[in-house]
Amino acid sequence: MAFAEVSTTIIQQFEGIIGPENVILDAERRYIYSHDETEDYSFLPDVVLKPGSTEEVSQLMKLCHAHTIPVTPRGGGTGLSGGALPIQHGVVLSMERFTKILTIDELNLQATVEPGVITQVFQDAVKEKGLFYPPDPASRGSCFIGGNVSENSGGPKAVKYGVTRDYVLNLEVVLPTGDIIWTGANVLKNSTGYNLTQLMCGSEGTLGIITKIVFKLRGLPQKSVLLLIPFVTNEEACKAIAEIFRAGVQPSGLEFFEREAALKTIDYCEKVYGTKVTTPFPSSMDAYLLCELDGNDDEVLMRDAEKVMGVAERFKVGEILFAETSAQKEELWKIRENISPAVNAYTLTRAEDVVVPRGNLPTLIVGIKEIGRKYGFNSVCYGHIGDGNLHINVMKESISDEHWNTTIPEGIGKIFQLTVTLGGTLSGEHGIGIAKKPYMPIAMGEANLNLMRGIKKVFDPKGILNPGKIFS
Amino acid sequence: MAFAEVSTTIIQQFEGIIGPENVILDAERRYIYSHDETEDYSFLPDVVLKPGSTEEVSQLMKLCHAHTIPVTPRGGGTGLSGGALPIQHGVVLSMERFTKILTIDELNLQATVEPGVITQVFQDAVKEKGLFYPPDPASRGSCFIGGNVSENSGGPKAVKYGVTRDYVLNLEVVLPTGDIIWTGANVLKNSTGYNLTQLMCGSEGTLGIITKIVFKLRGLPQKSVLLLIPFVTNEEACKAIAEIFRAGVQPSGLEFFEREAALKTIDYCEKVYGTKVTTPFPSSMDAYLLCELDGNDDEVLMRDAEKVMGVAERFKVGEILFAETSAQKEELWKIRENISPAVNAYTLTRAEDVVVPRGNLPTLIVGIKEIGRKYGFNSVCYGHIGDGNLHINVMKESISDEHWNTTIPEGIGKIFQLTVTLGGTLSGEHGIGIAKKPYMPIAMGEANLNLMRGIKKVFDPKGILNPGKIFS
Repeated sequence: MAFAEVSTTIIQQFEGIIGPENVILDAERRYIYSHDETEDYSFLPDVVLKPGSTEEVSQLMKLCHAHTIPVTPRGGGTGLSGGALPIQHGVVLSMERFTKILTIDELNLQATVEPGVITQVFQDAVKEKGLFYPPDPASRGSCFIGGNVSENSGGPKAVKYGVTRDYVLNLEVVLPTGDIIWTGANVLKNSTGYNLTQLMCGSEGTLGIITKIVFKLRGLPQKSVLLLIPFVTNEEACKAIAEIFRAGVQPSGLEFFEREAALKTIDYCEKVYGTKVTTPFPSSMDAYLLCELDGNDDEVLMRDAEKVMGVAERFKVGEILFAETSAQKEELWKIRENISPAVNAYTLTRAEDVVVPRGNLPTLIVGIKEIGRKYGFNSVCYGHIGDGNLHINVMKESISDEHWNTTIPEGIGKIFQLTVTLGGTLSGEHGIGIAKKPYMPIAMGEANLNLMRGIKKVFDPKGILNPGKIFS
Repeated sequence: MAFAEVSTTIIQQFEGIIGPENVILDAERRYIYSHDETEDYSFLPDVVLKPGSTEEVSQLMKLCHAHTIPVTPRGGGTGLSGGALPIQHGVVLSMERFTKILTIDELNLQATVEPGVITQVFQDAVKEKGLFYPPDPASRGSCFIGGNVSENSGGPKAVKYGVTRDYVLNLEVVLPTGDIIWTGANVLKNSTGYNLTQLMCGSEGTLGIITKIVFKLRGLPQKSVLLLIPFVTNEEACKAIAEIFRAGVQPSGLEFFEREAALKTIDYCEKVYGTKVTTPFPSSMDAYLLCELDGNDDEVLMRDAEKVMGVAERFKVGEILFAETSAQKEELWKIRENISPAVNAYTLTRAEDVVVPRGNLPTLIVGIKEIGRKYGFNSVCYGHIGDGNLHINVMKESISDEHWNTTIPEGIGKIFQLTVTLGGTLSGEHGIGIAKKPYMPIAMGEANLNLMRGIKKVFDPKGILNPGKIFS
């Protein structure tokens, strides 16, 4: 499909729909919308549109559909797979004016929000009412909740409470043709036709533009305990994970990081926040599990914490740190959350987020390091390991540009192949976007890809919405 | 699309693929496959095929696809919306030979099963290993787990633990063309392309034939308490529901039934099982909530039970029965589970299972009775009310056939309209099949239906698989 240019006439029509103040043409302001947090990608849009209502989105889409103009929807720009980048240029449709929390329904434990609400703002608003919205990506302070739905974001709480899609009951969506639909109903269970709601979740803005989201909410757990467990090797740490669940414990967070990740983050926190970290990370311990338990009963929490410690002590561990104060808890979570920015501040990286069945994590982590040795890269590993979701930051450091662009992608392909051999897949929560698109055939065959292409065509017959993402 | 006849030549080819013993031609045996548990529908298939492997299903589908022969996949035949009925005749593809539990992976808390495993057999097998598969339809003793996936079955535990789709990680599927795919990966979170797994769940056998299912499992809760709370009116009972959740309690079952349902069931249990029910159902109490709490800690359970009683006592209630013994618990669950067969033994019914946000249940129940008075029918209401899922059995009793086939469907349409007005939808767990297909435009517009038709065409270009279901 050949895309049309964004002509002066069309720009005038955009201005007629949303007002000239919401049509961004100057290059400096457009540049902001050319990149996200994925590597060093940059694609300049021809124009950035900032609609303010569903009706405006619908009118813009009708116009773009009529003229075959590519449209890339964009949330907070914190994506890690390039999903919001306008690789075909054309229009970036920014949802930044959709900032309203429309209702928090305490009777039904539901909330209706616009997609441009910042995740943390939403979390705080429901918390004020004693309620809980668990999905918790590290970028929560700046990412948009609509982007979370589009990428099916997870975060540390997913291990107990599920990912974003588990909280989405219903979506208002503008289709690429401009039609407006609700995908489902505001109900907890639904067997009424195909599940369009779940099809939209994680579709990376390729099937429609989300303009309203109905979430389910939970009661807020009142208490938590947090343990930091040091392991002699990363393989030992990975071996302990499945055993914690087998002991009948359900952590509300079970995070993994290598010592090197912690050290880089300590440096980063000192430089950026001026924070001095007091937690020790001795050189004899190569990897850490951060284990959170939550609930409403101190005794139950202590009993479960003892079970976790009992499991850990069957492995080669150092002294387990039981975070006593909220300051200690905050410091540990701060270290975990700043790993990704810290490693990216240190060097250019390729960030992968593979996922495998928990029991296969030890084989995965050993395999990743072997592949690194063979293909000549260092990696820092961390992530939501309780879900089997491992983040791998492959670091450029002193690697030549040529090696970085040829041999390293091949090595990453080997990591994906290993992952799939272990019953896993390419992405647990970052999505495919453009960064992992070349690797999709490792995860699935042509029959699957053809179904996805077919579905795309049903929603978007001219292929104008977020073209070139997920699959070719 | 005009369907072809099942000719003698094709029958011979079927026999070549799966052996003559698995090709059923005689009318008496075919009759068994002509109906399920939906009203009094019956559609005779031309032939029933019983393949024994994925490869055989694939070969059969290739043949049927080449010749444009309609194929209706069938599980245990316990459906309540006619989803497994061969309304275009042709082939019924029975999955009754797919009876193997292939693995129960205790390390990863996963199981891989064939679709013809009876749900209760699977539940018991994982329970033996201290694990828990929560979805629990009332037909668990005879329904197939593949049918549960296809209809997205729920049951009483769904209120705490979710419905079938929440446990499906990955599916092996034979597409209508005969291609074999896995829809996803054996992982707890996945943002790798469109969610084909969730698209299959609840698609009522119209998109592909499920040949293997990978489920996630949980640890088995060790303890439970059960309360029976009588209310003066059904409206009062419905008002209490949302308040129980607002009090911070998460029941593992929250069932509702009207007194009339209990009385019919007591009669039925006496006749069919010879069981004398000892629980009193006094005439002053019109409706009941059956509330189960589960967990591993007696004190926490007792504290939550007290909270539930505290909420209940703010409404017009009778004496709350706290089930002390396992015999008492069993009796209460037996009453609940036998309501549907009891009412169906009493008279022909139309069984609906609408779902609304919990807080709207009082308006719904009052509205249903008003509609019944206006359109001249009695109804028995019960269901998984903690989810907002209400089962309504509209009873034929002495209604004339003409009235039953003209005015009653109109009245049911009014119930669906009310449901949708209240933010709800047609089916929480029974599916649409043929029984509710005429009402789909009440739940969604043409844009949604067209997306579904388009998706159907992507999977099944010739429309041979389970034709005529869900939408026209």
